[in-house]
Amino acid sequence: MTESGLLIIISAPSGTGKSTLCRKLISDFPNVCYSVSLTTRVPRRGEVQGKDYFFVSKNEFKQKIKRGELAEWALVHGHYYGTPKNFLKKNLVKGKDVILDIDVRGAMKLKKRYPQGVFIFLAPPSFSELERRIQGRRSNSEATIKKRLTNARWEMGRIGSYDYLVINDRLVDAFTQVKSIILAEKSKVKRSKKKIQKLNLL
Amino acid sequence: MTESGLLIIISAPSGTGKSTLCRKLISDFPNVCYSVSLTTRVPRRGEVQGKDYFFVSKNEFKQKIKRGELAEWALVHGHYYGTPKNFLKKNLVKGKDVILDIDVRGAMKLKKRYPQGVFIFLAPPSFSELERRIQGRRSNSEATIKKRLTNARWEMGRIGSYDYLVINDRLVDAFTQVKSIILAEKSKVKRSKKKIQKLNLL
Repeated sequence: MTESGLLIIISAPSGTGKSTLCRKLISDFPNVCYSVSLTTRVPRRGEVQGKDYFFVSKNEFKQKIKRGELAEWALVHGHYYGTPKNFLKKNLVKGKDVILDIDVRGAMKLKKRYPQGVFIFLAPPSFSELERRIQGRRSNSEATIKKRLTNARWEMGRIGSYDYLVINDRLVDAFTQVKSIILAEKSKVKRSKKKIQKLNLL
Repeated sequence: MTESGLLIIISAPSGTGKSTLCRKLISDFPNVCYSVSLTTRVPRRGEVQGKDYFFVSKNEFKQKIKRGELAEWALVHGHYYGTPKNFLKKNLVKGKDVILDIDVRGAMKLKKRYPQGVFIFLAPPSFSELERRIQGRRSNSEATIKKRLTNARWEMGRIGSYDYLVINDRLVDAFTQVKSIILAEKSKVKRSKKKIQKLNLL
């Protein structure tokens, strides 16, 4: 009698604080788990197979594309990254909520396949604030900063394709907002078929 | 630059705890106000014109129907009750969230006119629990109890026409859920046009 879990897609321009927010969701909600991506890149020190990524060879990855086993995939700097369908399905069926931290292009591909997903766009309080945040990272070169800002501008023009907009001004508020979205989505009548059946039987 | 407020429609079978929950919402949220109904019945002791109801004559009421000034109306035990459109509009435009505590029939009429409204059905944890609650009220005659239960059964069959289902098992949980629904609805991209404009300008 468990309802299916939520597929929660979160996108945000780089520098918006998405990773911090997602980590907090996972640690505060035992029912929420991360979607583990498939990649052909080499594991970094400390990364665990099946937890951080499913590391596979290029051949295996291409086989999975061919067999239609990926919900979406992309080639980034010569490495493949993708979302395995069976991981999503397995967890959602158990009633687990799965967070997919993904860029706008990936999210748009997912939307076609999972229209029932909850699409959240996390935005900085303003574009100029994002500029300050990205420029504040010393590790970024001028070229990287410029590229990130151009990309951020493009991404922020795609907010209209999402269901929810959360502005990350103060993390605690953004977190409350995302928590509320999850709880509200779980209260939706269209996601409560089993609950309604039970209600009328008892 | 204020977004329009939310029109929140809450229906519940009698005995579900709707009034307690609505009062708590009003007292905890300064931005939430009650929709004040129009009625032709005589004010009861302590009832305040414009706060509890707008008390009008039958003639005035009929004029308002004729002029299309009511969002919905019904005749109950010989008295007219209705929701004035201008009260809703005035508050929503100011960015106030308006709660409309109304039965299922009234809610269905409102849905046609205000599809952007947030329709919440508050349900008891089970039908048998509702039966216990209604029978526990000493003031109810056997006939009243029977009528209320038949009506509740019919109303619970209409949950599918609502957006959200909140089960009032423990008031504190039901309240958190309704609060989350309000916050989530305010985060919807479709309700954030002005926020998005501002975001890209700054």
